[in-house]
Amino acid sequence: MSGSTFGKHFQLTTWGESHGKALGVVVDGCPAGLPLCEQDIQIFLNRRRPGQNRFSTPRRENDAVEILSGVFEGKTTGCPISMIVKNETQRSADYTEIASYYRPGHADYTFDQKYGFRDYRGGGRSSGRETIGRVAAGAIASKILEALGIRLMTYTRSIGPVEIDMQNFDSSQIWENPLYMPDAEAAGRASEYLEDCKKEGNSSGGVIECVATGMIPGIGEPVFDKLSANLAKAMFSIGAVKSFEIGDGFAASMARGSENNDCFFLSEDGSFGKLTNHAGGILGGISDGSDLVFRVGVKPTPSISLPQKTVTRDHKEIEVRVKGRHDPVIVPRAVVVVESMAALTITDLLFSNMACRMDAIEKFYKKD
Amino acid sequence: MSGSTFGKHFQLTTWGESHGKALGVVVDGCPAGLPLCEQDIQIFLNRRRPGQNRFSTPRRENDAVEILSGVFEGKTTGCPISMIVKNETQRSADYTEIASYYRPGHADYTFDQKYGFRDYRGGGRSSGRETIGRVAAGAIASKILEALGIRLMTYTRSIGPVEIDMQNFDSSQIWENPLYMPDAEAAGRASEYLEDCKKEGNSSGGVIECVATGMIPGIGEPVFDKLSANLAKAMFSIGAVKSFEIGDGFAASMARGSENNDCFFLSEDGSFGKLTNHAGGILGGISDGSDLVFRVGVKPTPSISLPQKTVTRDHKEIEVRVKGRHDPVIVPRAVVVVESMAALTITDLLFSNMACRMDAIEKFYKKD
Amino acid sequence: MSGSTFGKHFQLTTWGESHGKALGVVVDGCPAGLPLCEQDIQIFLNRRRPGQNRFSTPRRENDAVEILSGVFEGKTTGCPISMIVKNETQRSADYTEIASYYRPGHADYTFDQKYGFRDYRGGGRSSGRETIGRVAAGAIASKILEALGIRLMTYTRSIGPVEIDMQNFDSSQIWENPLYMPDAEAAGRASEYLEDCKKEGNSSGGVIECVATGMIPGIGEPVFDKLSANLAKAMFSIGAVKSFEIGDGFAASMARGSENNDCFFLSEDGSFGKLTNHAGGILGGISDGSDLVFRVGVKPTPSISLPQKTVTRDHKEIEVRVKGRHDPVIVPRAVVVVESMAALTITDLLFSNMACRMDAIEKFYKKD
Amino acid sequence: MSGSTFGKHFQLTTWGESHGKALGVVVDGCPAGLPLCEQDIQIFLNRRRPGQNRFSTPRRENDAVEILSGVFEGKTTGCPISMIVKNETQRSADYTEIASYYRPGHADYTFDQKYGFRDYRGGGRSSGRETIGRVAAGAIASKILEALGIRLMTYTRSIGPVEIDMQNFDSSQIWENPLYMPDAEAAGRASEYLEDCKKEGNSSGGVIECVATGMIPGIGEPVFDKLSANLAKAMFSIGAVKSFEIGDGFAASMARGSENNDCFFLSEDGSFGKLTNHAGGILGGISDGSDLVFRVGVKPTPSISLPQKTVTRDHKEIEVRVKGRHDPVIVPRAVVVVESMAALTITDLLFSNMACRMDAIEKFYKKD
Repeated sequence: MSGSTFGKHFQLTTWGESHGKALGVVVDGCPAGLPLCEQDIQIFLNRRRPGQNRFSTPRRENDAVEILSGVFEGKTTGCPISMIVKNETQRSADYTEIASYYRPGHADYTFDQKYGFRDYRGGGRSSGRETIGRVAAGAIASKILEALGIRLMTYTRSIGPVEIDMQNFDSSQIWENPLYMPDAEAAGRASEYLEDCKKEGNSSGGVIECVATGMIPGIGEPVFDKLSANLAKAMFSIGAVKSFEIGDGFAASMARGSENNDCFFLSEDGSFGKLTNHAGGILGGISDGSDLVFRVGVKPTPSISLPQKTVTRDHKEIEVRVKGRHDPVIVPRAVVVVESMAALTITDLLFSNMACRMDAIEKFYKKD
Repeated sequence: MSGSTFGKHFQLTTWGESHGKALGVVVDGCPAGLPLCEQDIQIFLNRRRPGQNRFSTPRRENDAVEILSGVFEGKTTGCPISMIVKNETQRSADYTEIASYYRPGHADYTFDQKYGFRDYRGGGRSSGRETIGRVAAGAIASKILEALGIRLMTYTRSIGPVEIDMQNFDSSQIWENPLYMPDAEAAGRASEYLEDCKKEGNSSGGVIECVATGMIPGIGEPVFDKLSANLAKAMFSIGAVKSFEIGDGFAASMARGSENNDCFFLSEDGSFGKLTNHAGGILGGISDGSDLVFRVGVKPTPSISLPQKTVTRDHKEIEVRVKGRHDPVIVPRAVVVVESMAALTITDLLFSNMACRMDAIEKFYKKD
Repeated sequence: MSGSTFGKHFQLTTWGESHGKALGVVVDGCPAGLPLCEQDIQIFLNRRRPGQNRFSTPRRENDAVEILSGVFEGKTTGCPISMIVKNETQRSADYTEIASYYRPGHADYTFDQKYGFRDYRGGGRSSGRETIGRVAAGAIASKILEALGIRLMTYTRSIGPVEIDMQNFDSSQIWENPLYMPDAEAAGRASEYLEDCKKEGNSSGGVIECVATGMIPGIGEPVFDKLSANLAKAMFSIGAVKSFEIGDGFAASMARGSENNDCFFLSEDGSFGKLTNHAGGILGGISDGSDLVFRVGVKPTPSISLPQKTVTRDHKEIEVRVKGRHDPVIVPRAVVVVESMAALTITDLLFSNMACRMDAIEKFYKKD
Repeated sequence: MSGSTFGKHFQLTTWGESHGKALGVVVDGCPAGLPLCEQDIQIFLNRRRPGQNRFSTPRRENDAVEILSGVFEGKTTGCPISMIVKNETQRSADYTEIASYYRPGHADYTFDQKYGFRDYRGGGRSSGRETIGRVAAGAIASKILEALGIRLMTYTRSIGPVEIDMQNFDSSQIWENPLYMPDAEAAGRASEYLEDCKKEGNSSGGVIECVATGMIPGIGEPVFDKLSANLAKAMFSIGAVKSFEIGDGFAASMARGSENNDCFFLSEDGSFGKLTNHAGGILGGISDGSDLVFRVGVKPTPSISLPQKTVTRDHKEIEVRVKGRHDPVIVPRAVVVVESMAALTITDLLFSNMACRMDAIEKFYKKD
């Protein structure tokens, strides 16, 4: 295998297991001269940290990041940036039991099938803690995007059956409620729904939406490295993701062409605009300058304390109740993971786009 | 840009424009010793050929493939396989008009933004004809999968609002009706719906479903090269795709954990099985041996003859009716493209999986 | 295997066998807007064409190139450029004999070991004709470099024991004598030496030197994608290459630091210069703006008509005299291959370099 | 930039600067089930550690490695292996002076040209300490090769003008003298030569030779990923390398074909053999099963205390004597770096080779 690296130009390699000594990431291809400090990273990491609200796992980690290389006198040097987060409160004893059987909905069985055995402590590499590296790298990508005027807004669109009402959309609410829902009323109902799940030892999925504004047109490479294709890969690389759509998504499949096409018009300043944005900001796999809009569907947390049938490694059928510290929903904590992966994808394609026109290359290298 | 290559171990590079001299593909990494002839490829290409039914473009191309390298005495040699399909009936005159303006829903605008100009003849590189190379390569991947006991079944799940009824599912129907729908009754209604779209100069989208049986467990690399992630990228690299889901997909986001988890059981022969398959055959990004199931949402063909507002390259607002030879729906022709991209993705990950266990490597290289 | 692709940003994929239907290359990542026609490519291909002088194989091919995609109205479009050269005078009958045994110095044995069998016609994929694709791609890279003020001069430095005298160096001679030697007197002696080799049914090796002027400083990526490292790979990917050195090369290993270091000085115009260039224009793997200088050692053509001992596929010891159309020396024809691979390497790294500084990226994407 | 990753299947990503907090490497693609502990790595690292003899820098670091992930219960898990070595004795004060000017023969100038500024402490990323990550990864690759019966022997072939005499070759001497020379007499003379260099404040280069025995035939991918090409890149990615040759190398360019070709013969056990090994174990870029033999030329350490002319960042000509802790020769310490890079290259190609034959793939995946 060789699947721990993402990106071609702005490239990250993550490492670490849930209950190992530490987790981390190496970011290669970050341009020199970007102001960067640990606090920039920590802000992002804090958004995915457990123990933030009563629907997330009570495991409390500081998840304090340390930058080990690639930054000198407050600025990136162009060399690889290694970042590390130490694991502090591993209670592996909680997990020794699960070494013997396959938890439904988890990667226990498939890791064993692939590798012959597995690091069973807390899910090992397949744990949600693996995303620490992505989020740390995503914080850097987000700083780069910000410098170029591109901003990402990511939030919970639905929890189980409770969806936000776009009429009530209030972006300030994203930071107001622990579910990151931009609709206070829906957040209230979602909270009740989760309470109910928790009571019965059950869990819930949900949908995350991301909107990128200030998009630069022309980003994405035909044919296989379309912005849409790379985003899709980025999102499906996140553990519990089972669906993804851009713009109108599945609804577009039911529409007619006349309903789905976005007509162009001229703005007063002479620039091109689109009357609608069913396409979610991507045409032919390339950004069109309008807002990038996509949704990511997350499955319910597989760890539930309700009894489930399963089998042991040594071929016995048993009934289990998964113990340990588990979120009844991972959607709110995955919001920053989605945003990070989007930032990484866009940054990578922004860099690859720089060599796509001869006139721009000549201008870039012109000796004054 | 550098986006015309897909795959790491089994790798294809496509080239060609809708109205250039030819289109083609180079497949690198095909193992030596696979029996292969042009007819193997042609069977796949014929499934995407236009002019097969009255809902597809009346442009008639033979799309006859020629193998130029990599095959010797009826078998692949391990060297790159170059395949070419000549363009025969280009009527570029049809397209000179569209050079001046941006067709809504097409890549005209984004290509211009990216490259400064575009090969406007028939959409150039962003045309659906680009998929010829993928399908030719997919035919080879499918032969490899077949030798390993993996088979793909791909079909139209819905056209616009008309969806197949899983109660009526009849796989033999896939080859019986021109819409590749495994439900004769739904196919009839879809046909009427398309007739209606066509009459009003409109178009329709739809959803394609693919099921892979005989899956080998352990395929897919954590973390970023998950089977699910690579499939998602593969599908979103297809022109008109706007959504993708695996197993229960978006429905999983509304379910509770107890409903979505697939419980394991022991078969009579002692092998592991799952009581359900909400996961669509993938756990933790790795195949679990059960059927791989996914769906791909395709938007309506953007070329419609209804009047649409748009702008010209030289900044004038106009109203257009797109002429030319267009399908009112591309879903049926995209079925084989989806199947090809799935076959390519699985084959690539089957190869990368071979070096994932030390015992298997030692056995592989053991000197007898 | 998956080794037919070179480059990360400016990427070529070659295909084809010596005696197949055709050979070719797909260039992906060529920027849009470069003026390009078949004649640009043909000029390069003619430099490697056989039958140009009496030391090269009498096989006469026109090696006429055809551009199949990626160029529109005389300019590159940013889409993959597919180029093809048809094989015309294959006389495979010449080669059927060699199917049964392993020619010393050739890849016959290793291909059989790797793939189980081989396309034995004219060496198949391991033939020098494989370089056609590289040279066609190199012609494009050279045009890009030229637009940026970088020029490559490549020539034969030695044939067997006959080396040019740097005191007599006359670049105009490169195009004057069929051996591409910039020293008329040495060329004369080399010619006699080759005549002698030919008479006895033997062959000769030689050394090729390349100098790039107008180099832009800062090209090459630490650590593994150093300009020197990528050049080394590029050169050793050419069939008969057995050695490579940059600047003083092996001689530097015998020098002391005070002799080998190049001291910096200030030019009259205030720019930095080096008093010497023992480093051959590369410091720490990155171009320093002075001339890039390197040498490539080529082994003698393995096909000789002198008797040699070898073995057959079915395990018999035999004595052979290799028949067919062979050069007593391939060095002169390899000159343009070396230049092409150098141009490809430099271009690729020029593109990757564009995203290495935040200030340059911000300037590039600044909205005016 | 994105040059800190090497390999496609067995992949390492190094990070860290000479005087940062730490240096390290992430190894991705290591198969599961390889027994591995920190001591396995430490043995390799100790071979490159400074302060081992009086010709190496007196800077004393323990260079103790810590494995942070990818190993569970004494075996690799198939997940990325993160290894870290903390920097302990950084005396950055030594280096503040060099921030202002460009040391001849160093990467100071080129890093500034590329990135606009540099981490000047001890050479930053361009320091020889960067190789710690390679050697740690190389230790793992070597364990894999050993399990497959492949062993590497690497030694100093020459120091300045003092070369070993192949008649006196004594492999046991490699570990006996601090210069790693397999010829006690030559080692003695080299030692005197270095003493002389040291006295005058000068430095020396040298040549390293590596021999791999037990090679498996068929390793290396035509065309661009030849074993020779990837080895060349690997070697030239090492800081001070200026030349590389395989088998007879440059001498082959002076030989005739009849002298350079290796004739095949049949061993008594019926296996194929070569009467000679001028090719150094590679034919057509693919291993032929005989010993792999290559040489790497290293330039003299650029840091010398003799006065040298150079320029400051703010455009003044000055004369400098480079202070700090420097080796008069880095060749002996580079021996293990060369061996590590060779092990990494061979391992990577061994893995890519596994999917090159259809019969082997079918056997691999056959369901019993």
